[in-house]
Amino acid sequence: MSQNLRIPGPTPIPPQVAEALGRPMINHRGPEFAALLGRVTEQLQYFFQTTNRILTFPSSGSGGWEATVVNLFNPGDAVLAAPIGVFGDRFAKVGETFGLNVTRVETEWGQANDPQAVVEALSRLPEAKGVFLTQNETSTGVMNDIQALATAIRGVRPDILICVDAVSSLSCVDLQMDAWDLDIVLTGSQKGWMVPPGLAMIGVSERAWKAHEQSRMPRFYWDFTRVARTADKGQTPYTPPVNLFFGLDVALAMMREEGREAIFARHQRCAELTRERAVAMGLELYANPAVASNTVTAIKTPEDIGAKAITKALREREGVVIAGGQERLDGRIIRVGHLGYVHEPEMTACMDALERQLQALGYQSPASVRG
Amino acid sequence: MSQNLRIPGPTPIPPQVAEALGRPMINHRGPEFAALLGRVTEQLQYFFQTTNRILTFPSSGSGGWEATVVNLFNPGDAVLAAPIGVFGDRFAKVGETFGLNVTRVETEWGQANDPQAVVEALSRLPEAKGVFLTQNETSTGVMNDIQALATAIRGVRPDILICVDAVSSLSCVDLQMDAWDLDIVLTGSQKGWMVPPGLAMIGVSERAWKAHEQSRMPRFYWDFTRVARTADKGQTPYTPPVNLFFGLDVALAMMREEGREAIFARHQRCAELTRERAVAMGLELYANPAVASNTVTAIKTPEDIGAKAITKALREREGVVIAGGQERLDGRIIRVGHLGYVHEPEMTACMDALERQLQALGYQSPASVRG
Repeated sequence: MSQNLRIPGPTPIPPQVAEALGRPMINHRGPEFAALLGRVTEQLQYFFQTTNRILTFPSSGSGGWEATVVNLFNPGDAVLAAPIGVFGDRFAKVGETFGLNVTRVETEWGQANDPQAVVEALSRLPEAKGVFLTQNETSTGVMNDIQALATAIRGVRPDILICVDAVSSLSCVDLQMDAWDLDIVLTGSQKGWMVPPGLAMIGVSERAWKAHEQSRMPRFYWDFTRVARTADKGQTPYTPPVNLFFGLDVALAMMREEGREAIFARHQRCAELTRERAVAMGLELYANPAVASNTVTAIKTPEDIGAKAITKALREREGVVIAGGQERLDGRIIRVGHLGYVHEPEMTACMDALERQLQALGYQSPASVRG
Repeated sequence: MSQNLRIPGPTPIPPQVAEALGRPMINHRGPEFAALLGRVTEQLQYFFQTTNRILTFPSSGSGGWEATVVNLFNPGDAVLAAPIGVFGDRFAKVGETFGLNVTRVETEWGQANDPQAVVEALSRLPEAKGVFLTQNETSTGVMNDIQALATAIRGVRPDILICVDAVSSLSCVDLQMDAWDLDIVLTGSQKGWMVPPGLAMIGVSERAWKAHEQSRMPRFYWDFTRVARTADKGQTPYTPPVNLFFGLDVALAMMREEGREAIFARHQRCAELTRERAVAMGLELYANPAVASNTVTAIKTPEDIGAKAITKALREREGVVIAGGQERLDGRIIRVGHLGYVHEPEMTACMDALERQLQALGYQSPASVRG
């Protein structure tokens, strides 16, 4: 039985991309790879909406956190982190691991950052050199308004380094690196990009490059300068994940043909379909609906039916794979991914299966109980 | 024209592996991935010849250097590095980058490490906590005798941390992690493993784990403890390169069926064929023939014909891709890879093409001149 993989990444791979992944290897120091790297970088700039440099690393998306911390900062630097869930919290922890002085703006899980609260926290932290934000918090299904946050932050701190984790949102929803004046935007291949995991991509602003020049944090693998210097020769400092580049090249061409706005609209339609179906079943969304994510939907599990029973039934009886909750949300929510290679029919099939399996597990929706 | 890719990595991919690379994605937190990780790890242990833990990282092979340095050592720790070329030198530089006190044993390029010289250097460095060795130096085509080196080192320093870069040799030539009492053995997917680049694999001895417990170097992405803890649950701390695991699983099954000794013998035959053909053309090997590598052959270019002209002619006229020299060897040598998915016919075709293109470039072998 072929699976309907509906976790928030890795996401399904289109057949054209799957074919490209198995292409014969090439010399990563030769002209073919130089052309490939150039083409991919230019297409990425279209989706990052930037003329900035975009650096690639053979790593998972979370490598982007470490790269940001060790390239832009020095031990002891103050940063404000605004986590709204597990992944934002980890970004903050990476900062702490490398000696940054991290202050957190606390936000109730299920909610987005309040720009005013971030600005107030910054006013109490005049020494802050950077802010860590998450565009889409995969653990809670909440999407921040990065434009509003960046505008508010720039209003009080025009030169602060705004570092945005856009791992599970970039290319799926609008993010304008240049127009919104963001300094670091990081993402990973296995989310909206329709490619297997293993490639991190990081946009770096001129302000970030200046900070990089002042940073004395020890670094080798993540060093922006080494990556940029070799990129100028159409290469990478160490062997790149060649077959992921093959796949990304094909995926980006497909995405470019579909167009940015059409992709955003498709993600919005799939998200709305998912949320509407959940609510129609009498389920409660975990995220505040006003800030619900267009790439992942978190749904509270019915009181008597734990998340594990639901994910197991869907996997074993329906071939539909969804995710449970993480850390304090373990067992309390299920999460449905709708990003990357996704269209309405897969989401309808997923929610049909969820409805069937909930019924099989004895779930009665409040509506049907009332009825 | 399909290429005969004869660089020392990435190496060609067998068709079965190519097919596996495009398989549908799976949940990296689900039972399929747990089974896959377990299977791959056990097969890797067979090739590392160890019962030690083997950790995997989404990274190029060179990430293994950084992982070794930040997990086992503290800033200020003394280590002895024994580079015999570009890659050994980079391993030493990574140590220096993170504050280790690195002393180098100097060895003429083209030669292997002399165990006696290493032991003498250690006697002058009683505070040394570790030794950095390279099994196969890809830049010079030299293979060290790691068994002899480890035996000599253990004779004087039974508890020193022996850290071996086996990126371009492991699985192609004999390396017995346990019997030779090695503490770190690191490799990368794109070499002998017949898989695209993007996955680093690191064997960690009990002695290395004890050193890890004493190390206070800041680390997040490379942290052995995080990787080991999640491995115990059949997972990885962050999204693993799922499709490289698919490929590695298939490649390891093929390799297991062929058997370790048969693979070593095949590499030896391909290497001998390559060296014999080069010598028969009147070319000079860069490496001392007594320590010539079984995975990559470095050949001095004829006086009047630079490496670039040769690699270009081979690529454009023959579809054969070989490598030039690096750093101080740039332009002075060509390098032919014979590792991973390689058999005699490809090497014969490669050397036939080299002979044709050298003649086309006006090369006259000393033998034919004499004749």
